[in-house]
Amino acid sequence: MQANDVKNAKVALFLADGCEEIEALTVYDLLFRSSIPVTLISITDSLLVTSSHGVRITADTTIGDIDFDEFDMLVLPGGLPGTTNLGSCTLLTDKVKEFYACGKQIAAICAAPSVFAKLGLLDGRKATCNPSFENVLAENGALLTKEAVTVSDNVTTSQGMGTAIAFGLSIVEHYKGKEAADDLGRKVLYYR
Amino acid sequence: MQANDVKNAKVALFLADGCEEIEALTVYDLLFRSSIPVTLISITDSLLVTSSHGVRITADTTIGDIDFDEFDMLVLPGGLPGTTNLGSCTLLTDKVKEFYACGKQIAAICAAPSVFAKLGLLDGRKATCNPSFENVLAENGALLTKEAVTVSDNVTTSQGMGTAIAFGLSIVEHYKGKEAADDLGRKVLYYR
Repeated sequence: MQANDVKNAKVALFLADGCEEIEALTVYDLLFRSSIPVTLISITDSLLVTSSHGVRITADTTIGDIDFDEFDMLVLPGGLPGTTNLGSCTLLTDKVKEFYACGKQIAAICAAPSVFAKLGLLDGRKATCNPSFENVLAENGALLTKEAVTVSDNVTTSQGMGTAIAFGLSIVEHYKGKEAADDLGRKVLYYR
Repeated sequence: MQANDVKNAKVALFLADGCEEIEALTVYDLLFRSSIPVTLISITDSLLVTSSHGVRITADTTIGDIDFDEFDMLVLPGGLPGTTNLGSCTLLTDKVKEFYACGKQIAAICAAPSVFAKLGLLDGRKATCNPSFENVLAENGALLTKEAVTVSDNVTTSQGMGTAIAFGLSIVEHYKGKEAADDLGRKVLYYR
């Protein structure tokens, strides 16, 4: 796979109350280690986000304070009710549709691919998600792969907390190529 | 493996500035999902901890406000300078030695097994850690296994961010048995 121009890489990672902390922060961790700019963005007016398991995380900024045009990729972690909260944020979902339509990257893991599905973005497209949300994807025309990670054009989806490293590495691969992603996987002892 | 009495389970997870956020919170996540009580404890007077990658996490309490006797296990995440900070906290290292001596559980991942090594707790004992800290363990008499996770009596050690789920599941197994740990591993899509 050809690596994309990392100079253009700037990833927006959205934190909702009730997000799955590992799905969110594993992506952050791997991008940080790869020197790919990544911003933790609260979808409310408060920087403080409480995860689905009660972990309190302080975001870098809030959705009202960012310029979406500065970003190249939007990432949605799963968790409940985090995914429901992401799907209810029309500022975010409008931008997800816009990014999709203009060929910019969108990515989601666990329950969060259901947000893409409900927006009609997975119709006729290969995708994966947490098994408990496969019905939502199927009802909206997705072609379920049941893979850990599925990359389909500009849409990346993944299954859950246990596939978060694979998901994060696929984003690293998008920007820096397979060799860099594999090197990082070995460095963090994911590949042993 | 015989599961230990989960009624006695109460896990203290120590957060230092500079800790590796995924190594810390993956353990928290898996114990939370298993209904094993786990407390995020800052080793300073401040609840706010900043990870090695700049993620701001609010701990549940601080080391000065806990009663160590209430806990059954002490867990040390890695990361730098988090591990150095953990090793410099004599209140913590005194309690690590005490837990070790009375047969209570101690666990560490990535760089943090070096804290156990420097306290002399790994002399002649099987252990694992991040490859860049193997020299510290070897110099202090540890028998390096190079495994993802090594359980040796009441001492559990693990290699790094990419083995954090295996590390967390080994703690779940300690309290709830192999079947429960395997079930959780499948539920989070780690085993697929």
